[in-house]
Amino acid sequence: MPFTVLVAPSGFKESLSANEVADCIGEGVLRAVPRARILKAPLVDGGEGFTEALVAATGGEMHRLTVTGPVGDPVPSFFGFLGGAPVRTAVIEMAAAAGLRLVPRDRRDPCRTTSRGVGELIKAALDAGAERILLGCGDSGINDGGAGMAEALGVRFLDRSGEPLAAGGGALAQLARIDLSDRDPRLDAVRIDAAVNWHNMLTGPRGVARVFGPQKGATAEQVELLDRAMETYAGQILAAAGIDVATAEGAGASGGLGAGVLGLLSGRLHPRYDIVMRYLDLDRMIAKADLVITAEGSLDGQTPFGKVPAEVGRRARAAGLPVIALAGTIGKGVTLNFEHGIDAFASILKRPCSLDEAIAATSKLLVRAAEDAARMILVGMRLKRTGVVARRVRHGRAGSRAAA
Amino acid sequence: MPFTVLVAPSGFKESLSANEVADCIGEGVLRAVPRARILKAPLVDGGEGFTEALVAATGGEMHRLTVTGPVGDPVPSFFGFLGGAPVRTAVIEMAAAAGLRLVPRDRRDPCRTTSRGVGELIKAALDAGAERILLGCGDSGINDGGAGMAEALGVRFLDRSGEPLAAGGGALAQLARIDLSDRDPRLDAVRIDAAVNWHNMLTGPRGVARVFGPQKGATAEQVELLDRAMETYAGQILAAAGIDVATAEGAGASGGLGAGVLGLLSGRLHPRYDIVMRYLDLDRMIAKADLVITAEGSLDGQTPFGKVPAEVGRRARAAGLPVIALAGTIGKGVTLNFEHGIDAFASILKRPCSLDEAIAATSKLLVRAAEDAARMILVGMRLKRTGVVARRVRHGRAGSRAAA
Repeated sequence: MPFTVLVAPSGFKESLSANEVADCIGEGVLRAVPRARILKAPLVDGGEGFTEALVAATGGEMHRLTVTGPVGDPVPSFFGFLGGAPVRTAVIEMAAAAGLRLVPRDRRDPCRTTSRGVGELIKAALDAGAERILLGCGDSGINDGGAGMAEALGVRFLDRSGEPLAAGGGALAQLARIDLSDRDPRLDAVRIDAAVNWHNMLTGPRGVARVFGPQKGATAEQVELLDRAMETYAGQILAAAGIDVATAEGAGASGGLGAGVLGLLSGRLHPRYDIVMRYLDLDRMIAKADLVITAEGSLDGQTPFGKVPAEVGRRARAAGLPVIALAGTIGKGVTLNFEHGIDAFASILKRPCSLDEAIAATSKLLVRAAEDAARMILVGMRLKRTGVVARRVRHGRAGSRAAA
Repeated sequence: MPFTVLVAPSGFKESLSANEVADCIGEGVLRAVPRARILKAPLVDGGEGFTEALVAATGGEMHRLTVTGPVGDPVPSFFGFLGGAPVRTAVIEMAAAAGLRLVPRDRRDPCRTTSRGVGELIKAALDAGAERILLGCGDSGINDGGAGMAEALGVRFLDRSGEPLAAGGGALAQLARIDLSDRDPRLDAVRIDAAVNWHNMLTGPRGVARVFGPQKGATAEQVELLDRAMETYAGQILAAAGIDVATAEGAGASGGLGAGVLGLLSGRLHPRYDIVMRYLDLDRMIAKADLVITAEGSLDGQTPFGKVPAEVGRRARAAGLPVIALAGTIGKGVTLNFEHGIDAFASILKRPCSLDEAIAATSKLLVRAAEDAARMILVGMRLKRTGVVARRVRHGRAGSRAAA
């Protein structure tokens, strides 16, 4: 059986996607150990690149289509199906239909942007036979609590006069009733798992409008309006569906899309890496591997608190497997990671340089760092053998002496 | 037997001596492997720090005394004896009596500076019972071909009228005869090994006056005068002692001191690291070690050409031992070192930073880099064990099947 290395990295912010990081590390390992078998599990958060990474890692298929964009205009979009999954599993990233990148800078008004396109992607996935949907949240440009998404799937949002509301989170301040009577019945049969940032709340001081509104273009007044709208929305979801999204962990993810998934689509929310690891069947990959290599842009005392290397480290250690971590920057408190499954780490840097220079060269540096780490590990493997040989020689000598 | 690591680094230019580098690496290894045994062989060139490093590495003793400095004034100086050597072996660095640092900036005239103090150190070592002398060359502030040194040991340098010459290399242009009749007879019994830069020639276009004169304060005219003086000097050594120093490798080391050692002191010249390794008995240390760690400020495609890591790598590989190298900068062509005994390498850098920041933090970075490399090696040692266990399990299963 060849020496098997599981490469399970995060993306490097500002430079490489998790997929690209995994490719670089795999290439570097093969330079040092040409006959190694490389398994790749790029650990994406729910944001941009989520679909592509999971589809590529599993050898799945991509579907392209046009949906309603966040400002109402049609946008080219996509979803995918995982390869090799026991049930037909669609992968959707909300940013592909309602991402901040799809909102022109001069139209960044989170009171009006809509998640309708996300609902259209879900509908298309159901039409294509999806039995499960893995929905990635992150990099959103909306703050409508997923109301637009639900509307595309037959849910109606009405004001006091029974009239449908306008699109966008701001209008939800006028929400008087949610009508589920025309909700797509397939939602009761499909399982939707959303990968969310577990710390994002829908309302209040840690609520989505206050934390993310400003970076989506909201003024201070709009932040207040949106926060009230989310409270109203949560109240109406509770009334219509009996689900309390106001304080649910992750409900504030992606402009409150988590609340819509949880309250109106019968979906479940999961800490993002947890669910990605489960869909990639990381534990099965770990069981096949001799060594795990993880990576993140920065490795430091914060890493054990929800970052990819620590999540991978804990799972691998539980399986008795050694784990090494590569990073652009090794920061303060890094040794804390030894308690969370990381056995050794290395920086990818090779000489004094600026952050910009390092970012520009990340892929090259990663390949080399993986090669260098693998060579260091080979030294250790050789040492072990030497130790065994040395002991044998000693036994041999002792034996001859005893015989003489 | 504990896991034994031989630490055999060079110094890091502009920041740490070879001794300090060895200490840092040893500390780092012990952080990862607290029960390891550390052997240290700091590999110094012949210049400043030579005596202290070798005396400290062998547990020897230092002698302090006052000698004639390069401009004629007395200077505090020192030499040492190696610890644990089979014959009483003195260690002298020429820079301790005739170094550039001992020449005040306003008196940098290499036509007049003298190596007399080096001869006084040799005399003092002989008085203290030296049977061998290891003489380090480098960082000199003189250009007298070692004539001053020889004079302190009884050699006389005479002009056409039979009068003794004035001190300094410039006066050697008037040299008409060398009188060896009062030369210290102990020089025939003691063995002097000088550690020199093998590429330094005494005369000609690659000669010491042309290559090093300007940085010692020589004008263009003085360079010409000194070069002619060295030619005359070489001719008279040939006439008096029958030894041709004009084209001997290393004879130009330390302002031509190599020529004086070779031609007038019956000494031998050696490539600097070669002789240091021999006196430290590096091969014996290698025989005791499981792993070798070497280091240099920069590791690149030039390293195989006479730099410490490659010299150490070749010797260790010949003994079948794995070698890793640590460096501040990993540069172009570094993989060439794999052919010269280096099995793996790592940079000491942990984050983007300037060269100045790296130099300021070198000792801390080195400790950590050694720890990190040791941890990576431990991963490899563990893998091997896992591999053995896995094979046993497979054999076991095959066995039961066969039995069933």
